[in-house]
Amino acid sequence: MARIVMKFGGTSVADLDRIRNVANRVKREVDAGNEVAVVVSAMSGVTNQLVKWCQELSPLHDAREYDTVVATGEQVTIGLLAIALQTIGVDARSWQGWQVPIRTDDAHGKARVEEIEGAALIGRMKMGQVPVVAGFQGIGPDNRVTTLGRGGSDLSAVAIAAAVKADRCDIYTDVDGIYTTDPRIVPKARKLQAVAYEEMLELASVGAKVLQTRSVELAMKQRVRVQVLSSFEDKPGSMVVDEDEIVEQPLVTGVAYSRDEAKVTLRRVPDKPGIAAHVFGPLSAANVNVDMIVQNLGADGTTDMTFTVGKTDLPRAKAVLEEQRPTIAFEAMLADPDVAKISIVGIGMRSHAGVAATMFKALAEKGINIQVISTSEIKTSVLVGAEYTELAVRALHTAYGLDAEG
Amino acid sequence: MARIVMKFGGTSVADLDRIRNVANRVKREVDAGNEVAVVVSAMSGVTNQLVKWCQELSPLHDAREYDTVVATGEQVTIGLLAIALQTIGVDARSWQGWQVPIRTDDAHGKARVEEIEGAALIGRMKMGQVPVVAGFQGIGPDNRVTTLGRGGSDLSAVAIAAAVKADRCDIYTDVDGIYTTDPRIVPKARKLQAVAYEEMLELASVGAKVLQTRSVELAMKQRVRVQVLSSFEDKPGSMVVDEDEIVEQPLVTGVAYSRDEAKVTLRRVPDKPGIAAHVFGPLSAANVNVDMIVQNLGADGTTDMTFTVGKTDLPRAKAVLEEQRPTIAFEAMLADPDVAKISIVGIGMRSHAGVAATMFKALAEKGINIQVISTSEIKTSVLVGAEYTELAVRALHTAYGLDAEG
Repeated sequence: MARIVMKFGGTSVADLDRIRNVANRVKREVDAGNEVAVVVSAMSGVTNQLVKWCQELSPLHDAREYDTVVATGEQVTIGLLAIALQTIGVDARSWQGWQVPIRTDDAHGKARVEEIEGAALIGRMKMGQVPVVAGFQGIGPDNRVTTLGRGGSDLSAVAIAAAVKADRCDIYTDVDGIYTTDPRIVPKARKLQAVAYEEMLELASVGAKVLQTRSVELAMKQRVRVQVLSSFEDKPGSMVVDEDEIVEQPLVTGVAYSRDEAKVTLRRVPDKPGIAAHVFGPLSAANVNVDMIVQNLGADGTTDMTFTVGKTDLPRAKAVLEEQRPTIAFEAMLADPDVAKISIVGIGMRSHAGVAATMFKALAEKGINIQVISTSEIKTSVLVGAEYTELAVRALHTAYGLDAEG
Repeated sequence: MARIVMKFGGTSVADLDRIRNVANRVKREVDAGNEVAVVVSAMSGVTNQLVKWCQELSPLHDAREYDTVVATGEQVTIGLLAIALQTIGVDARSWQGWQVPIRTDDAHGKARVEEIEGAALIGRMKMGQVPVVAGFQGIGPDNRVTTLGRGGSDLSAVAIAAAVKADRCDIYTDVDGIYTTDPRIVPKARKLQAVAYEEMLELASVGAKVLQTRSVELAMKQRVRVQVLSSFEDKPGSMVVDEDEIVEQPLVTGVAYSRDEAKVTLRRVPDKPGIAAHVFGPLSAANVNVDMIVQNLGADGTTDMTFTVGKTDLPRAKAVLEEQRPTIAFEAMLADPDVAKISIVGIGMRSHAGVAATMFKALAEKGINIQVISTSEIKTSVLVGAEYTELAVRALHTAYGLDAEG
């Protein structure tokens, strides 16, 4: 017997038939003797409609009212799923965020979960009742409904799993697991049985959009074992767990890519102390996230600084830097949005040298020029021309022995 | 300066344009220096969709889950209207039933309001903020969302008006007031400036579907002055008030009709004590409402009993009576669904004799046979053949001098 939190996203509850399908899946876990709580999103499309109404009334709408409106999507689903469960003989009841309660801060529209009182839910689960909890929502210190921001239902599920001390948090979605890379690019991509939290964080932040970064961070912090699996097929998914649980650790677990970044180069910046602060301080103040950074020292006391920013932030970044030009004193600013970041990720890289060398060699053999390199403990990323994205991903997938057999 | 509760029904908030229109109406009252609270229904069509989903999943769905689902309709409207108000410079915030709180009993799906804490709303109104309150919903003793049953938003508005000690409760709807009779039958029907609570109760229960009976009862009990007016036109409506406020009291205020009743006659029932209890006890136990009752004593120690029941209850009533036949010992049961009840209503009838005589004369002149007569302090009703409905209503409207001039 295990205690399981099952989370179903919008496409899994898109209509009454799918809600019935979800109810059957829940019943199967209950019949197997497990204690089950369910977390659901809004029926797909509903949240978009609600958001659109708020925006049409006012682009600068009150985030507290936005939350009141948008949180209704999940409220509908929990009631309907509870009815569907009762109809097939499963004792169930719905829980809105304020009823649990799921306490958050007051950052309406993107609130952070601060505390979940798990006692009531645990009590019901022990009695054999299935709590059906609204994802994506909570209650703020002002006694008003808050939402956690897009993708917040995953976060709700992980937080609830931690609060009820669940053995596992199953995230049902429209993919059947986590792959070594994007199967649309590499048909030989393999589904991973298990991924470490740290790996998942790196994979998520560089483009594997299966699990929201914040959910993975929370799972890691609270040691919640997460499974990603398909709500439409009936087979095991991929576990996201502590690295100690992963028996066989390959050097590289996956290859990720992102086309969401743009490259900025500042030419001939005077190389003196504090210059990096002059560049990155104002960017940070303007909410521009900077990712990869390299600096090449020239012979003449100047330096070329290259870094990447989110592609959508590029115009703002350029404006900020132009404004700072008198202070930074660069000679020229070059911006290139046609780049892609390719990363290899694996906790095995910690204990093995030379992993990155294989990457550089594989890319060189395909004639792909590396523009920027950055490394962390379990990741090596390179920036290449955007047109090489697929070629680079395929080459690395093969080079690290990730291709599926047969 | 006055304190006003404004209530807008589903058609008044059917889309964003209408919500903006409602916001403008509210702004006008605020700009005039009034303290305003608003109560709204769900956007029209929304509640029906939500109800349909619950019913499709299970005709015998859990009423608590039904309430969770259905209450979302109003929650969407309050958020959107609050945004629309803020956008035109009116300070506003939304209130869900549990936030006010609007405490009800635990009769989910048709809960009764037990207590509304008006303090928070009054505080906000005094600060110049407009509370936008979800109609139709409250919170039960089980800390779960309840709904008040169809038309419950009117009830919410009246209850909130009482709780905040409002000078007036304005019910905006798709008709512009209360008429002396149905204008579709009598084009010369006049809009009434004022109607007494008691009159409105009689008019509502016999077919004037403008205000829900429960709302009028509550308004009368709490002495809430109610105005019924159009949300699409800009003119005063009809006031529903204490009769002391009505200066000019006509003998008859209005003519109402109902085609929702059916006539049942039990022939040759033995005329002995307790026989009425044998007839009406079992009907009441079967939830069949009996309205008009007459009994004609025959010469032979038997009596004919005639009464009316709701047309939809007729099959049930017949089954119950057939079952009781050995006890009641009637000779024959006749049922006639083709009847209409025509009523004249007016508090002036209390102090004047002979008002009913005019009714009987007017109907006789048109050759309309009266099947049953029943009277109360401020109402006289007759049962006639259904095909005479319009003719009877027109004749009485003219006979009591209610026709508009010109």
